[in-house]
Parts: sequence; C-alpha cells; structure tokens
Amino acid sequence: MTGAAPVKPQTAPSASIATPEGTPLAAASDPVALAAELIRAPSVTPHADDALELVVKRLEAAGYRAERLIFETGGVPIPNLYARIGTESPNLCFAGHVDVVPEGDAAQWHHAPFAGTVEDGVLHGRGAVDMKGAVAAFLSAALAFGRPAKGSLSFLITGDEEGPALDGTVKVVEWLKAKGETIDHCLLGEPTNPDALGDAFKVGRRGSLSGILTVKGVQGHVAYPHLADNPIPRLLKLIGELTAAPLDHGSDFFPPSNLEVVSVDVGNPVFNLIPAQATARFNVRFNDHFSLATLKSEIIRRIDGAGLTYDLEFQTGASQSFLTAPGPFTDLVAGAVEEVTGRRPEPSTSGGTSDARFIKDICPVVEFGLVGRTMHKVDEATPVKDLHALTAIYSRIIARYFSTFA
Amino acid sequence: MTGAAPVKPQTAPSASIATPEGTPLAAASDPVALAAELIRAPSVTPHADDALELVVKRLEAAGYRAERLIFETGGVPIPNLYARIGTESPNLCFAGHVDVVPEGDAAQWHHAPFAGTVEDGVLHGRGAVDMKGAVAAFLSAALAFGRPAKGSLSFLITGDEEGPALDGTVKVVEWLKAKGETIDHCLLGEPTNPDALGDAFKVGRRGSLSGILTVKGVQGHVAYPHLADNPIPRLLKLIGELTAAPLDHGSDFFPPSNLEVVSVDVGNPVFNLIPAQATARFNVRFNDHFSLATLKSEIIRRIDGAGLTYDLEFQTGASQSFLTAPGPFTDLVAGAVEEVTGRRPEPSTSGGTSDARFIKDICPVVEFGLVGRTMHKVDEATPVKDLHALTAIYSRIIARYFSTFA
Ligand SMILES: [Zn+2]
Ligand SMILES: [Zn+2]
Repeated sequence: MTGAAPVKPQTAPSASIATPEGTPLAAASDPVALAAELIRAPSVTPHADDALELVVKRLEAAGYRAERLIFETGGVPIPNLYARIGTESPNLCFAGHVDVVPEGDAAQWHHAPFAGTVEDGVLHGRGAVDMKGAVAAFLSAALAFGRPAKGSLSFLITGDEEGPALDGTVKVVEWLKAKGETIDHCLLGEPTNPDALGDAFKVGRRGSLSGILTVKGVQGHVAYPHLADNPIPRLLKLIGELTAAPLDHGSDFFPPSNLEVVSVDVGNPVFNLIPAQATARFNVRFNDHFSLATLKSEIIRRIDGAGLTYDLEFQTGASQSFLTAPGPFTDLVAGAVEEVTGRRPEPSTSGGTSDARFIKDICPVVEFGLVGRTMHKVDEATPVKDLHALTAIYSRIIARYFSTFA
Repeated sequence: MTGAAPVKPQTAPSASIATPEGTPLAAASDPVALAAELIRAPSVTPHADDALELVVKRLEAAGYRAERLIFETGGVPIPNLYARIGTESPNLCFAGHVDVVPEGDAAQWHHAPFAGTVEDGVLHGRGAVDMKGAVAAFLSAALAFGRPAKGSLSFLITGDEEGPALDGTVKVVEWLKAKGETIDHCLLGEPTNPDALGDAFKVGRRGSLSGILTVKGVQGHVAYPHLADNPIPRLLKLIGELTAAPLDHGSDFFPPSNLEVVSVDVGNPVFNLIPAQATARFNVRFNDHFSLATLKSEIIRRIDGAGLTYDLEFQTGASQSFLTAPGPFTDLVAGAVEEVTGRRPEPSTSGGTSDARFIKDICPVVEFGLVGRTMHKVDEATPVKDLHALTAIYSRIIARYFSTFA
C-alpha cells in the first residue's frame, strides 16, 4: 500500500450552507454542502421523509423520474425512493439509505449531532459516514455527469436500513421485480473502509442465521435430584456439540463461518430449585460453503449427535451469503478507487450484513463508501477531503461504467 | 418390611372441635383435635403468633415454664418458644415449627386450607403434616406423660422455619447457649416418611452450599468476533470442569454429594451482539466427606483447572452436614417406631435441610414425623390413624428416654 493518497484539495464549505432555514439549495456539485444539508434533516429511522425529499428534489430538478414508495408492513409508513434517468440498458444503480441510528447522548457530542458543522476540514454529524456523506457524494457525481448518452443511472434510497429493514430495500426490490424494472449493476454506498479511504470494498457478505435452542426438564428441589430432571447439563451438552468444531476454514473469498452463542438463559431466581427449562440463542455468520438449507442441516446434525431431545427454532430474517465474482464490474470499481487514492482496495467479504443481501437477487452488487470508524458512535464525522475523494471515485465509476458496459 | 402396621384404632374427632369460635380447649390427650385447632390458627410465615400461643397455653397449663422469644433481625418480629418442665438432666427436647407455607390457590383445595376438617378419617389443612400434626402429637404425648420423675422435657417451637429462617431456631439456639441452658437430646418432628409411617427417620442431613460463578468478556457485534470476547464459551468450560466428575460416591451413612447448576443467565435480548457477562448459579448438597471449607477448596480447585479468569461468590446461609451416629438414642427412636408400626425405620440422611442443622450444634438430634407426601402442596392432609400412631410413638420415646438416660 502507498502512503499519501492523491486526493483533491480540501474545499471550504460554501456560505450557502451556514443557515439551515430558507437556505437556497447548495451547489449541486458540492458534496460537502449536500451532506451537511442531509445531516440537518434529522432522519432517525423511521423518520426519514425530510431527508429523502431533499434527494428527490435534486434528482427531479436534474430530470430523474422519481418514485416515492411508501411501505408499511411493520406498522409505520417508511419512505423509499427509486429514481432513474434514461430508459435504456445498462442501468447503473446507486443504493443507499438516508435514515440514521439515534444520536445517543447528545450532550456527549462535541458538535451538535444534527447541525452538519464543518470545522477544521471535518464534517460532523449523525450520518456523516453512514451514509449521508456517500449519498451526497454520489448525488454530486451523478448530477455533474448528467444524463448518460446511452444507458441509465438510477438511485435506490431507503429510509429503513438501520431499523427492522422490513419496509426498505427488500420491498423496493420486490416492487422493481413486479414492475419488470431492470438494474444491471449496483453500487452500495455503505462505509467499507476500516481506517482510510481506499482500504477495502465489499464484493460479498456472509449470510446470517439465528436460532433458539431449548431443552425442557422437570422442575424439582435440589435435595431430590432424582425426582427432577435438570435441563441445564443437557443444554450445555448440545451447545458443546454445536460448537465443538469450526464450521469451515474460510473459502477463496470469505473468512471462516462463525457461530456465536449469544445468550444462555434459565432465569431461575433461587438456589434450591432445579429449573424446568433452559434456552440458548445463537447466531451464525456463514460463507459460501453453506446455503441456508445446508447450514440448518449441519446445525441439526451436530445437535442430534448428542442423542437428546430438544426444540430448535430458526429465526426469520436469515440471509444467505453472496459474492459478486471478480470481473469487469469489480475491476472497474477497484480501479476507480486506486486512481483517486493511490491504493488498490482489498476485495472484502467480512463484517455484518447490508442491504446488498436484498439487491444481490436482482443484479451484481459491490459496496464502497467512506471510512466507518465513527459510524453509529458519538461524534460521527468525516474529513471533508474524503467526501471530495469519494465524489471523485464515484464520478470515475459512472464515467467508466458507461464506457465499459454501454 | 412387614405389611399391615399395628396401629391404634381410629378415633372420631371430639364434638368440641367443630366450632372454632368460643370452643373450649380440646381434650389434651386428643392429637387430632389439637392438630385441627392449630390448623385453624392460620400461621403462614411470619404470622405464627396465634398458633404458637395455643401451644404456650397448653404447656403453661401443664406446668411448663414458657419463654416467648421474639427475634427481628430480618425486619419482621418472629415469635418463638422455649418451654421446659423439670430442672434436672437429662433434658429431652421436642423441636418443631408452627409456621406453614402459603396455601397457594385456595380454590384448588377440596377442603378449605385453614378449616382443619376431618372427613373419612383424614385431617385436611395446611400444616397437617408439616408440621402441626407432629407438634400436636408430641404435645399430646408430653401432656399425657406429665412431669418426668427425673430429668426434663422441653419444647423448642419456632415461627420461622418455612421462611428465611433468620429469626427462628438459629436464634433460639444462640439464646440457649447464652443462657447456659442444656439440652441433652432433641427430636425434631419434620415429616420423615416418604410413603408410610415407619419408612424412615433422619439421623443426619447433608450440608448445602450455593455459589455464583461469573465470567466477564467484551461486548461486540457478532460480525466482528475478533473485536469482542464472548464470555459464554468460557463459562461453559468452567461449568464443565466443575461438573466433570462426581464429588464423591457417598459414605457409610450418606448418599453421594451432588452439585446442581440451577441457572445460567446472560440476558442478551438480541442475536447480533456478543454479551459482556455470563453467570451460572449452583448449589451443592454434600455429605460428611466434606466440610464447608474443604468443599469450597474443591470447587475452586476444579474451576481453576480451566486456567481462566472468573468471579466466584459463595452465598451466605451455607450449612455443614451432620450425623447423629448410631447409638442408644437412635436405637430408642427406631425401636419406638418399630413397636408401633411394625417396621424398623430406615436411618436416612437424604433430602433437604431442616432446623436440625442449627440444633446439632448443641446436642444430638434425630427427626421423625408424619408422611411427607402432601407437604407444601394443595390438599395437604394426614390420616387420623397416623396422628394417633405418631402420638403412640412419641409417648414410647418419652417413656423410654427417661428409663434409658435418667
Ligand atoms: Zn449504513
Ligand atoms: Zn417442616
């Protein structure tokens, strides 16, 4: 890896973003002003309407056909957006979210979490890196690019990524499929860099499967264990079987699958009673050695090895792993990152899940965004120079995309 | 074991016990009337005053010097009684309790729990077997016996056996020691027979020791296990070491010591977080292979075998095992039981703890009472013929005691 990254010079925020009220729209080409504007529209899940509307206005002003999509299966109306300019293939889609996690204890912040303050070359605020900054960067790049000569540019922006994610991207993807809308490639703007812009981009994600394992026994007094049947030793035996050996040792593109027992609970408040039930909860992050079906089989096979009676309940919301295999699209993204930062990003498949788990059903998806270190924390912030560099990367991706695929 | 037991013929309850209000004291010699009278003075711990006062009145009327002892370290005044007739040695003490466990769902009882109903030769009510029936039987036997020609008879009756037991027998024993009062032998009236009168008497009890084992870790997201430190596998390893081998295989008079893990708790409500702490709670019922000190050492030795960091907290209220070695006193009790029931009772050390764990510090103690099957349950009841047989047994014990030891 090289040291200093060749980034654009730092730009001071324009005067137009100093006063939130009655402010004219920031210059379309200024990602810092756009990001600050988005931060100033607080959008803790599920209240992302105002932030999403800012994006809609920009895109409509630039000639995009915008569809506001409200889904409400989770009981709260969730705003989503699909917007497209152009009608032909190929269709490059930028996916992201404008909802943010709560600010936590606002008193701990050194800059007000929803003020979008720029100070000493750093933009502060909830969502600065996850991921209003990336939305602003792509918006800036796309608006500067304009309408593709051949092909389409589109935005899939949700207001339900940080919450239950029931009425966000998963629903938009269903709607796109139902409508017969085609997306050819997708770039998701999640923060993918652990330490510095150019570290890594995501070409896949592990799957996630959660389960609850319960063993029943017979309650009784500890002084008469023969009249009771303690479920705890049997549950521990089952956990032992479940965790005795690694699930795998990783694959070409993935780290090893990992099972964590995240809770064991009995809830017996006294010392003189043998309890009637014991429960363990676990989660598996798994790679492409397994499908959801084969992983469930393996888990059941291991537990059955103990020859005991148990209840096992897999949770809904499980997701399969996915991989966007190396090829022209991943090369294009990595190349754009390298040109701007001077560093070839690592193709990564580690970390948690993202909305890419839904998008992968309709097209290849790759993720690249800002540096994630402050995401979800107090004092979330991004250097202004990273926003400019990310905009430059996104601009190159857009330009190369149409020269490569159109 | 023989079949039919030669018991006294069943006696119908006297008319005087039919109306609780304004009823004259039941005939002193009728244990059924006495037991019913005690049941009609509801005495769920810690409200045993009325029931205890009934006992005090009988004993004072018969010439006993009664000391009402109120202890209140637990925040509630608890009534206790020590009463004695005679001033010389040997002093045979009957120990028992007049407090009872709550009735539970009164609607489930087939006879009102505090009515003391006698029907078809069965006395019904909370405390019938644990242990107002036994208190009534000994009272009946002692009042019939009168004042010993040489030696003393005494009663140690508490109102705090079923509750926290902080202000009951343990405090009375301290008071007796402080006063220099000597008891030579003690008979405790707990229900000791599993199925039929004559099955068993207790010559010892296992000790009890409880502990809380805690392992700390570092909380983190399941997708980044290398940034977290899951305490659950380490806690399960410690539990494994703790329970890998039996503590012992029993001794001449005791069943094997037994360790039960009674709860394991993490309390993590979500699947995507590795928790910061995991806790196990355990209880050991242990025999005379161990003292409290050597048992604690053995537990620590086993856990230390895993080479991990942990917190271990032993609970207060632990008790050592005890054994009243076979000899003239145990022979006397077993002989009396055999004479009345036709069956030699098994000398038992199994089951839970009792107030004998406090009494054993001042004198040898043996336990014999009714059949425990319905104790602490809905529809607690005892056959009237058992009450008469127990009274006959207690009468023989008293008579033999003074002819043997005085
Ligand atoms: Zn995000
Ligand atoms: Zn009892």
